[in-house]
Amino acid sequence: MINPFDDVYFMKKAFQEAEAAFEKGEVPVGAIVVVENRIIARGHNLTEQLIDVTAHAEMQAITAASNFLGGKYLQNCTLYVTLEPCQMCAGALYWSQISKIVYGARDMERGFIAMSSQLHPKTEVVGGVLEAEASEILKRFFIQKRNLN
Amino acid sequence: MINPFDDVYFMKKAFQEAEAAFEKGEVPVGAIVVVENRIIARGHNLTEQLIDVTAHAEMQAITAASNFLGGKYLQNCTLYVTLEPCQMCAGALYWSQISKIVYGARDMERGFIAMSSQLHPKTEVVGGVLEAEASEILKRFFIQKRNLN
Repeated sequence: MINPFDDVYFMKKAFQEAEAAFEKGEVPVGAIVVVENRIIARGHNLTEQLIDVTAHAEMQAITAASNFLGGKYLQNCTLYVTLEPCQMCAGALYWSQISKIVYGARDMERGFIAMSSQLHPKTEVVGGVLEAEASEILKRFFIQKRNLN
Repeated sequence: MINPFDDVYFMKKAFQEAEAAFEKGEVPVGAIVVVENRIIARGHNLTEQLIDVTAHAEMQAITAASNFLGGKYLQNCTLYVTLEPCQMCAGALYWSQISKIVYGARDMERGFIAMSSQLHPKTEVVGGVLEAEASEILKRFFIQKRNLN
């Protein structure tokens, strides 16, 4: 049987969140949390609107998922995020003991790989899902921002 | 002239927050943010009560300070925290570009130094202020917790 609920499907859902951020003038990064093919949490970057550096898409998705589950550990959960998490978000994901992280584009400067942040040993990581699309929306955002200033 | 507003004075204020966490059955860590000898934000660990791994003392103090200042960058601010920040909190502090971090006890396992997290190049760090007291309240908490279980 063909399973429509693959990583690309859920990454597209995370993309909808990134697009919502773009519309608000926020750096377009979106995230969702999935358990057994069900989306239990959504988040998009809101650092400008909330005037808060901690308001990354992943942080909001982690908080929302814990709220939904009634527990602070995200075992059996997968986070889909359009951009590789930064060290703050990697640190939060470490504490959450999340089972799997799927990200889109690499962040060669501020991503957790470049910053040598540690994820939980139980966490599986998959990168590069819809990578080109994830890079493209970020490029489009920064070009538009430059042209407006 | 003798200045009563030194690092020990403000660390004691952060301690009051750690004690508030202790009273709530939370791992006792407290933080405050200070600008020109004025406390503009307070926070204590609330991960159990909020069922949220992101609810560390520092994260709440950062959000509260940004809210007070109306800006997301914490330049000219000093964070006093009773325990060395973890990689999540170090990551948030990195984004905030905070001027100075003063911590009490080292966290040899999960602290940002052991985890090789990066702070902002502009951030000055002072460790070990009221270190013995900060270790003692944590030890007391974990002994009490063990005895209750």
